[in-house]
Amino acid sequence: MLIEKDFENIISKLETEIKKILPKGNVADYIPELSKINPDKFGVSISTIDGLHFGTGDFDENFSLQSIAKVFSLTMVYGALGEKIWNRVGVEPSGNPFNSLVQLEYEKGVPRNPFINAGALVICDYLFDIFENPEIELLNFVRKISGNSNINFNLKVAESESANGYRNKALINLMKSFGNINNDIDKILDLYFKMCSIEMSCKDLSHTFLLYSNHGELIQTGEKLLTVSQTKRLNSVMQTCGFYDESGEFTFKVGLPGKSGVGGGIAAIHPGKYSVAVWSPLLNEKGNSYLGMKILEFITTKFEKSIF
Amino acid sequence: MLIEKDFENIISKLETEIKKILPKGNVADYIPELSKINPDKFGVSISTIDGLHFGTGDFDENFSLQSIAKVFSLTMVYGALGEKIWNRVGVEPSGNPFNSLVQLEYEKGVPRNPFINAGALVICDYLFDIFENPEIELLNFVRKISGNSNINFNLKVAESESANGYRNKALINLMKSFGNINNDIDKILDLYFKMCSIEMSCKDLSHTFLLYSNHGELIQTGEKLLTVSQTKRLNSVMQTCGFYDESGEFTFKVGLPGKSGVGGGIAAIHPGKYSVAVWSPLLNEKGNSYLGMKILEFITTKFEKSIF
Amino acid sequence: MLIEKDFENIISKLETEIKKILPKGNVADYIPELSKINPDKFGVSISTIDGLHFGTGDFDENFSLQSIAKVFSLTMVYGALGEKIWNRVGVEPSGNPFNSLVQLEYEKGVPRNPFINAGALVICDYLFDIFENPEIELLNFVRKISGNSNINFNLKVAESESANGYRNKALINLMKSFGNINNDIDKILDLYFKMCSIEMSCKDLSHTFLLYSNHGELIQTGEKLLTVSQTKRLNSVMQTCGFYDESGEFTFKVGLPGKSGVGGGIAAIHPGKYSVAVWSPLLNEKGNSYLGMKILEFITTKFEKSIF
Amino acid sequence: MLIEKDFENIISKLETEIKKILPKGNVADYIPELSKINPDKFGVSISTIDGLHFGTGDFDENFSLQSIAKVFSLTMVYGALGEKIWNRVGVEPSGNPFNSLVQLEYEKGVPRNPFINAGALVICDYLFDIFENPEIELLNFVRKISGNSNINFNLKVAESESANGYRNKALINLMKSFGNINNDIDKILDLYFKMCSIEMSCKDLSHTFLLYSNHGELIQTGEKLLTVSQTKRLNSVMQTCGFYDESGEFTFKVGLPGKSGVGGGIAAIHPGKYSVAVWSPLLNEKGNSYLGMKILEFITTKFEKSIF
Repeated sequence: MLIEKDFENIISKLETEIKKILPKGNVADYIPELSKINPDKFGVSISTIDGLHFGTGDFDENFSLQSIAKVFSLTMVYGALGEKIWNRVGVEPSGNPFNSLVQLEYEKGVPRNPFINAGALVICDYLFDIFENPEIELLNFVRKISGNSNINFNLKVAESESANGYRNKALINLMKSFGNINNDIDKILDLYFKMCSIEMSCKDLSHTFLLYSNHGELIQTGEKLLTVSQTKRLNSVMQTCGFYDESGEFTFKVGLPGKSGVGGGIAAIHPGKYSVAVWSPLLNEKGNSYLGMKILEFITTKFEKSIF
Repeated sequence: MLIEKDFENIISKLETEIKKILPKGNVADYIPELSKINPDKFGVSISTIDGLHFGTGDFDENFSLQSIAKVFSLTMVYGALGEKIWNRVGVEPSGNPFNSLVQLEYEKGVPRNPFINAGALVICDYLFDIFENPEIELLNFVRKISGNSNINFNLKVAESESANGYRNKALINLMKSFGNINNDIDKILDLYFKMCSIEMSCKDLSHTFLLYSNHGELIQTGEKLLTVSQTKRLNSVMQTCGFYDESGEFTFKVGLPGKSGVGGGIAAIHPGKYSVAVWSPLLNEKGNSYLGMKILEFITTKFEKSIF
Repeated sequence: MLIEKDFENIISKLETEIKKILPKGNVADYIPELSKINPDKFGVSISTIDGLHFGTGDFDENFSLQSIAKVFSLTMVYGALGEKIWNRVGVEPSGNPFNSLVQLEYEKGVPRNPFINAGALVICDYLFDIFENPEIELLNFVRKISGNSNINFNLKVAESESANGYRNKALINLMKSFGNINNDIDKILDLYFKMCSIEMSCKDLSHTFLLYSNHGELIQTGEKLLTVSQTKRLNSVMQTCGFYDESGEFTFKVGLPGKSGVGGGIAAIHPGKYSVAVWSPLLNEKGNSYLGMKILEFITTKFEKSIF
Repeated sequence: MLIEKDFENIISKLETEIKKILPKGNVADYIPELSKINPDKFGVSISTIDGLHFGTGDFDENFSLQSIAKVFSLTMVYGALGEKIWNRVGVEPSGNPFNSLVQLEYEKGVPRNPFINAGALVICDYLFDIFENPEIELLNFVRKISGNSNINFNLKVAESESANGYRNKALINLMKSFGNINNDIDKILDLYFKMCSIEMSCKDLSHTFLLYSNHGELIQTGEKLLTVSQTKRLNSVMQTCGFYDESGEFTFKVGLPGKSGVGGGIAAIHPGKYSVAVWSPLLNEKGNSYLGMKILEFITTKFEKSIF
């Protein structure tokens, strides 16, 4: 078992290591509100299943979760409806950029997985099937699993993305034309953009992801949100589909299930051991945090802490 | 740690379980010689890193490895040349059937990963770069890692596949047109078809795959064939790309790195713990053993022995 | 030059011929209002540049023009703006079904030609650039070139298509995401669905298409709506792109520039000679009138009146 | 009817016009032997159905026909076997570069039309079905229709293309894997490369293409090589598919059925009137002669001699 000293060692080496890496890439610019972020921000937080917590840099500062939030809506829907959700969304990597319509058309409106935009829209559609007021339910759920009741949407970011969200509108209309959307398109899009605008810190994020490290049981309360089998499956979908068109590369270099967002965050877990959250807004050409991937690669390669 | 009793328990439950599953699917028919196989054949073998071995059914009978053998040539080339091999072949899942030319053309002759046919042909091309006589080297290598000096090609199967291998000829010529093949096309194809024709039993196969469970070190001799980091990476490529267009589904349901072949075999590993080989010739519509996947799903779901 | 007797001969032979052909296919069902049409309706009308007119069957009964109306909006925009319109829409056949998003995405939001739905939406967008009230302008234009002041939209058909127009909404949002749409999406869609709902008879339609046979000059008034060169080009686009994914087949069998619609109509012309309109609601699997294509093939093959 | 003076006028204006156009583009470089051509070569030849002939520049100098020769093999096979040839090759434009494997794979080994490389290979396969010695038959046929018994293959060009013909090898192996090739792959490729290496002058070429202008009847002898209907259909395939991925553009700007080759030649016809051949080795990015297209556009636009 990993012990406190191991992680302290990792964190201290990491602080040295990080200074050697020349930052590269660009902040997300297709959402105007996000493009204003300070590109030098940088934070790391690690939480172990035994209750240890380590952080460095801006690990206590909020940032925009973006696609990382898709894991939370999926958890709600999967927990509520079980395996039948996979009839309307697949579990295969896409092999194409994250918002591609090409594959969606060839596959008759069924998204390849719940982490590409089309798949996350189907999951939001499910939330309207389940809840009267999915917006409030989603926020309450994220507050509960993070243990932070101040978590909120950033409505300026949500509006900024909505105003430029023509491609997501194209995706949802295409799925509707194939009969794979049940509820009102505008309401689903509104929820989707709000969900992506949720903000939290690396510290909150590593706390939250312990859920997936802990086989679906909320450490704070012991509440079972997903079965062991469901958690295993959700983790495996993160492993194969969590990093857009770079999931293979991430698995190859990092070897942990995880999820990235264009806000520059990445969360990853080692089942039964620990969770880790990193944040650096400069993205590589695939839309993943450049420094974030380097750090996670450093952690798992140097310390041989991958699952493989 | 898993102990002897756990596995005895698994094997005995599995014998009961297997009788409940109605076999489905078809034997591979595009290689005439393979289509003659008895569809009722069935074997399972498990080997632990501590030296325990369990088998049931036809676990001691030879079958055609087909694509499973691609793991061995990759091991030779990766061990010999290191990370530079990834310049000519990627590590991303293909999102398309295993012998698709479409993606290969869009990506300018660089195969998505070393387990689709195009990628395995590039790896065979590398063998000609490295060795004077790659055919003998390959056979010796497989004999060494399996610990069975009787392992051999089945030349009838190789010829049968070669006589119908127009699609592989198309793939290699396309890559040559993009400058991604160095050696003689006919020689590479000949080696490729022979490699796929290698035969071994489930027992041999689970022994052999301990190498990947044991971080690249040959248990029999302690010889280091891959570094820890290389083994992690090769395992991760198996996880994301080892099951053709069904890799996501396999990761989702089984959650172990592995590799399947159209001969009906599947080999999978739990890093640091055990390896497992199954054989049943009836394939599902994606080209993976129907019963083989069911068994592995049973093992990891019921016994919660996935890596996730 | 063709003379009156030739056409009388064609029409009378055609009446015999038509009885020998077993009708096949289905009426368009994706627009509920259109699916109510009597499938046995059948009309043919021929107009020569010398002022001769011939008709048979239901040639005087109105039907829904659907995609045929795209020729009229293109005429307005091409006449008003000239060659610069081709910066935002191409002139190449699509090689894909008429409402495919795949090609549109690969080609960065620039539709292959003005007759696929995406291209026609760009042309409608242009109408909003040019006119304050494009809806009235369009209607007046069609009334003028047809010489029939009763021509109108069928609002029930327009609404029926709009209510099911998710794919067109996907197309226009995708183009907007690439910056190839200037005006309000909902207004453009509204105009597009109204345009497609325009109704006229075969008689009106062959009269109207004389414009394209007469090098862009309105026969009734001598008004020049397109230059000779523009007419040649518009005709050539009809030849290569006028029949969805069956344009090559139509050119091959019929050999006249023309345009079809899912209402079952087809209009075609022989430059400098005549125009022809046919109507039969049963569509082949490519969305073109089954009987309509047979009749036009009969006319040009038996009477050797193709342009080739 | 066009008269002598019209063409003399065209030719003399053209000589002035041509000097105003700045040559652009590159000679074909994927066939090393072709890349040695003098890029300044330039010739035009026009032949009318009434027996008039006009030429300017290097119109009497031989050049490599390349894809233009595909029209001749198609004429032989179509004349011999009739409509049944279209079961194994389509008549639709490809919407993709001329040697794309993508579309061929999606369409199960049936090439879109006889002018893309895959389609021309199927036509060569047919020649082996029909003739004992197709190489001699092809040469004799081209000598007969051109009226020039010195026409020959250029074996150095054929060998140069064969040595680099990996993409054509990929295409034919892919078709073989779908069962759409009957004869020996190497023999078909050998015939194909020889066919493409046939050389003639613009003068020969415009003489030869009169066949297609004259409804399939050889003017010299009155021999009927294609029926009127077959000629119409072959011309229509030239119109929609004769210029690779630029067929729509050519139809749009030139408006004549024709065929280009990467040797820099283009042949086109006006049915019932005349044929024209141009040659200039600099190719645009679509593989068609830059100056050749400009000249044909000039002829048909300025003199309004298109078929549309």
